Amino acid sequence: MKRRLLSVGVAALVGAVLGGAAMGQTEFVNTLMPQPAQLTAGNGRLNLLPGFTVIVDKFRDERLDGAVHRAIQRLQMQTGVMVGTAAQMQPGALVISVDGAGEAVQGVSENESYTLEISGANAHLQAATDVGAMRGLETLLQLVQADGHGFWLPAVTIHDSPRFRWRGLMIDCSRHFEPVSIIERTLDAMASVKMNVFHWHLSDDQGFRMESKVFPKLTEAGSEGQFYTQEQAREVVAYARARGIRVVPEFDMPAHTTSWVVGYPDLASGPGPFAVEHHFGIFNPVLDPTKKSTYDFIDKFIGEMASIFPDEYMHIGGDENNGVEWRENPQIQAFMKQHGLKDRAALQNYFNEKLLPILTKHGKKMIGWDEVLTPDLPKDVVVQSWRGFNSLAAGARQGYSGILSAGYYLDHMDSAADHYRVDPLPKNSDLTPEQAARIIGGEACMWSEYVDPQVIESRIWPRTAAIAERLWSAQSVDNVDDMYRRLRVQSLRIEQLGLTQISQEDASLRALAGTSQIDSLKVVAAVLEPVTFDVRGHWSSQHGITNQMPLDKLVDALRPDPPSRHNFAELMSTYLQDPAARPGQQEALEAMFRSWIDAQPEVMQLMAGSPLLGEALPRAQQLSQLGTMGEQALAYLAAGTPAPQGWKQQQIAVLDAAAQPIALTRFTVLKPLRDLVNEVK
Amino acid sequence: MKRRLLSVGVAALVGAVLGGAAMGQTEFVNTLMPQPAQLTAGNGRLNLLPGFTVIVDKFRDERLDGAVHRAIQRLQMQTGVMVGTAAQMQPGALVISVDGAGEAVQGVSENESYTLEISGANAHLQAATDVGAMRGLETLLQLVQADGHGFWLPAVTIHDSPRFRWRGLMIDCSRHFEPVSIIERTLDAMASVKMNVFHWHLSDDQGFRMESKVFPKLTEAGSEGQFYTQEQAREVVAYARARGIRVVPEFDMPAHTTSWVVGYPDLASGPGPFAVEHHFGIFNPVLDPTKKSTYDFIDKFIGEMASIFPDEYMHIGGDENNGVEWRENPQIQAFMKQHGLKDRAALQNYFNEKLLPILTKHGKKMIGWDEVLTPDLPKDVVVQSWRGFNSLAAGARQGYSGILSAGYYLDHMDSAADHYRVDPLPKNSDLTPEQAARIIGGEACMWSEYVDPQVIESRIWPRTAAIAERLWSAQSVDNVDDMYRRLRVQSLRIEQLGLTQISQEDASLRALAGTSQIDSLKVVAAVLEPVTFDVRGHWSSQHGITNQMPLDKLVDALRPDPPSRHNFAELMSTYLQDPAARPGQQEALEAMFRSWIDAQPEVMQLMAGSPLLGEALPRAQQLSQLGTMGEQALAYLAAGTPAPQGWKQQQIAVLDAAAQPIALTRFTVLKPLRDLVNEVK
Repeated sequence: MKRRLLSVGVAALVGAVLGGAAMGQTEFVNTLMPQPAQLTAGNGRLNLLPGFTVIVDKFRDERLDGAVHRAIQRLQMQTGVMVGTAAQMQPGALVISVDGAGEAVQGVSENESYTLEISGANAHLQAATDVGAMRGLETLLQLVQADGHGFWLPAVTIHDSPRFRWRGLMIDCSRHFEPVSIIERTLDAMASVKMNVFHWHLSDDQGFRMESKVFPKLTEAGSEGQFYTQEQAREVVAYARARGIRVVPEFDMPAHTTSWVVGYPDLASGPGPFAVEHHFGIFNPVLDPTKKSTYDFIDKFIGEMASIFPDEYMHIGGDENNGVEWRENPQIQAFMKQHGLKDRAALQNYFNEKLLPILTKHGKKMIGWDEVLTPDLPKDVVVQSWRGFNSLAAGARQGYSGILSAGYYLDHMDSAADHYRVDPLPKNSDLTPEQAARIIGGEACMWSEYVDPQVIESRIWPRTAAIAERLWSAQSVDNVDDMYRRLRVQSLRIEQLGLTQISQEDASLRALAGTSQIDSLKVVAAVLEPVTFDVRGHWSSQHGITNQMPLDKLVDALRPDPPSRHNFAELMSTYLQDPAARPGQQEALEAMFRSWIDAQPEVMQLMAGSPLLGEALPRAQQLSQLGTMGEQALAYLAAGTPAPQGWKQQQIAVLDAAAQPIALTRFTVLKPLRDLVNEVK
Repeated sequence: MKRRLLSVGVAALVGAVLGGAAMGQTEFVNTLMPQPAQLTAGNGRLNLLPGFTVIVDKFRDERLDGAVHRAIQRLQMQTGVMVGTAAQMQPGALVISVDGAGEAVQGVSENESYTLEISGANAHLQAATDVGAMRGLETLLQLVQADGHGFWLPAVTIHDSPRFRWRGLMIDCSRHFEPVSIIERTLDAMASVKMNVFHWHLSDDQGFRMESKVFPKLTEAGSEGQFYTQEQAREVVAYARARGIRVVPEFDMPAHTTSWVVGYPDLASGPGPFAVEHHFGIFNPVLDPTKKSTYDFIDKFIGEMASIFPDEYMHIGGDENNGVEWRENPQIQAFMKQHGLKDRAALQNYFNEKLLPILTKHGKKMIGWDEVLTPDLPKDVVVQSWRGFNSLAAGARQGYSGILSAGYYLDHMDSAADHYRVDPLPKNSDLTPEQAARIIGGEACMWSEYVDPQVIESRIWPRTAAIAERLWSAQSVDNVDDMYRRLRVQSLRIEQLGLTQISQEDASLRALAGTSQIDSLKVVAAVLEPVTFDVRGHWSSQHGITNQMPLDKLVDALRPDPPSRHNFAELMSTYLQDPAARPGQQEALEAMFRSWIDAQPEVMQLMAGSPLLGEALPRAQQLSQLGTMGEQALAYLAAGTPAPQGWKQQQIAVLDAAAQPIALTRFTVLKPLRDLVNEVK
């Protein structure tokens, strides 16, 4: 049997060689996400027929059984084929051989590797731990192939382990609260792309979301009734562990603590009274680092939380302290003089140094944002960088481990491609191997100014799958077109897990339009996406937007980086770059431009009759203009004639106008259209 | 100001007079569902502008505050208008005046009435109880009108109360388990159409779903890990109460008890051993009614459940006892002789008579299916009829209260119109007023052989809204076209509550097709629906279908009674009945027929490549044939020429073939097409 070795660690060939459905040379279409470290494609297939059996032949425990059970359920749902389990070896079966459970509390160095060997005779998944087996099961489910006759697993040998050990997703549940059901669905989706850290941002100025029985006023006064009970938190921790995911809770301090001091004003550096914050931004309330009682409070609180969250790390935030309350408090100013603390940073450093032994006492290591990084901190502190690689590298040079979040902010409304190109350890970095090894991963961050339970899934997914691949797969896996090809499939898989990142757009459009006849509205919505965080943030502060206001506008229905963005760019780029292929591309482009023009009358009627859609009405007119522009450009290029005098100038003006934000939306198709216009003589 | 009184109790004029969007005479389009008892439309409107305020000016408690808070959240989401609350009267506000909380445990005679008066100056909701206020708030939310300029409440006066006191939905959580999140969403949807009883079918042969701490083996051995904890059940009861909904638990006995006897074989009349049932049908295991220990068990169990479920009623099932185990048990046969119990029914009657004092001891009244009805039962027993009105009337004549479920079985895949036409108390009934008053309502029944968490919402909704209206509104509210007009809107409202009865179809089609390019597949799916329960049941028993098998076929994606069914029939009937309107209808019909033909090539390619869709492939061919048939018929009718020899015969053959079930699906458009073909000369 002829076999070809495709070491993805050496060259990103999998996408190129196995990617196309029309390749024929191989037995399968590779839609794996993330791509495995090493994949050898064989010949042959293991058919998935009724009676297909799973055997767990070595170590077994409740967690592994649960993971196998869920995988079987999903395989059955995907294929309609009933899958059995057996204790005895059988031909044509999937055998799962695991050495042991793995760490009692999953840590940074948990072994997540696995080997998957599939031949025409059987499939064998081997892993050192439950967690490795779970990673392998996700790969197995992604390998399933289909044609008109049935389903099968392709003959492959995969040796896989992650490039980075910390592959996280942070969700801010303070600015908007998310129910446990959303958190659990998110954990399912994370597991499907092999992410392993759920960073739970549980407190901030806008709400304290974690029940404390020692300090009940934290939620009584600071949550407006929206918080997780301790039992729910334990349920989330267990749900995550069952999927090989750590839960790192964050209690941001000393700043971002308005919600703490509403119930416990004695903790504050300012005089109060305090109220839960509804606006967004950086606010003054900050813990008083000069009082013993503050540390007594934190000690008891951390002790209580340590009994709920078993992870070795606890995130203490540490970011965005504006220093106002410290500056304005004479007692604190006197304290600073007395202790030789020259500025805000020095006092915060003092606070962190007092915090550390408390964490240590309760068996926790510290993780915090860039601001926590000071030379006196012990070396097991992890720094999470919102500032970028340089900040991370500086830490690494001093001996600190770090994870990257700059470039992975999901609320920035960047494309999956943008995130995909950000590497926690860029090729050109000048870190020594020892320093480089301190960069242990990254985290996608879902700050929640503009996400509620309805919106959040389309904001996180599918873009986060691209980040997950960046953190798991080899650096050389970097083909953006191939990433998008697989991302489309992965998004369908995530939808099958019960998430709504695809379906919510239509549901929201129906609600906005007040009808289920939304075909023409969808034509417009398909080429729009939310504006960047900066634009929205600026607009929001101008308009006094708070987290009490509903997220019920067109911008909230739209998906960031919708398929149109990359698809249209790819189509146009093929058209422009490959004159031979033009006729085929031209037809597709013409149909698209025509649909933009045709949609206009109906959409304008709909938008004009809906108060919530009305603000986006100019978008329908503009899209029709863009369609006409496209049709004309194609006609000139097809005819090989120059455009009439002034046409180009006029089109550029239309494009410039269309590039202005309207109703917090922006077009996804402007750059390729500009290229098209520029191609016209 | 000119006002017109529209007493819906007298004539179903609201739909006809206020229904059309194009009427112009009135200030609003009536999309209320259910229709209120009495509605007076005024002139003018109360604009919903920022600063719109809600005042609760009389009685207040936590439940009312919660209901008002949720209503405000929904109003904000619907309109984007921020709504405030105030303690002091203000112009342009909604004032809510409630007399008191209502019953401490909501019962059958809870006062649900309310009055809603809206003028250009303000809105006033008055109710005797929290529950009445909740009903009124739902009406208020449904009254919101919009145009291009904004939202408003129309000037109306509504006096409303339900026709029937028991308006329930039963969900069978045994044959398939439903998580609490689905139950809670269902309760939200029920509240939106003013239903007031959630009947929770918690045990059956296929699983015991309720945790017992006294008898832990009920779930340990009988649930396969899928059950509600007592805490979850209490959460559901509280969630329901907060929405004015009673929770009536059902523990079906003496038959349908396989899941009981797996853990407690001593309860059984047969020798065992027993295993949780995975198939569907009627099975032999039945409790042993001759042993004291059986009643001791039931006594303790009911006592425990009574502490969780506060409702005055407990449902004891009582249905479908095949008597096999009793017949085959010599000891039971001897007992029957000894006690002069001549047959199975007599022994079951004996069992019920022993059961009653146990229920009474724990403060519960009995409700059971038709089979419980025997002359010796006390008169406060309620009979739930799956047999039909005659059975219910027989009970009423004997003095028993009853609720109707025959005609409201959601798994039968009847249309909303079919359910709508079933009245618990038909016009032609010969019951005396006193007897008629014993018919206190009805319940929609969602038996769960073929519903899982993904499928269930599209099976329940929106059809159940039509049943809800039948049970709340006057008998004279019976215009089917108008019901469907409002049902479409109500379905959108229910989707906005977070349910998936609309969006799940597309999500499932994407999963089946393995792509998000499903436009052509949707053309086919739109005119298909699941076959009837009988056809599916027959097929399932032939194929050994169990509740362990995935519900992942086209039939599971489809919605019963999709919009195509009524819309196409209405379109065709207008076309056929009104020659003057023909040109307009003809264009719409032509476009539809063309889309059926155009979809074929792409859909066939998709279906042929998907193992799960492949079985439905003939449907794509047939739909194309139907499209051609339609085009030809329209052409002959437009030309006024007869069809060629044999054409009609040929079309009838095509229609007959299309009427055969394929892949458990059926077309929704055949009857109107047949009418069209028959119109051709």
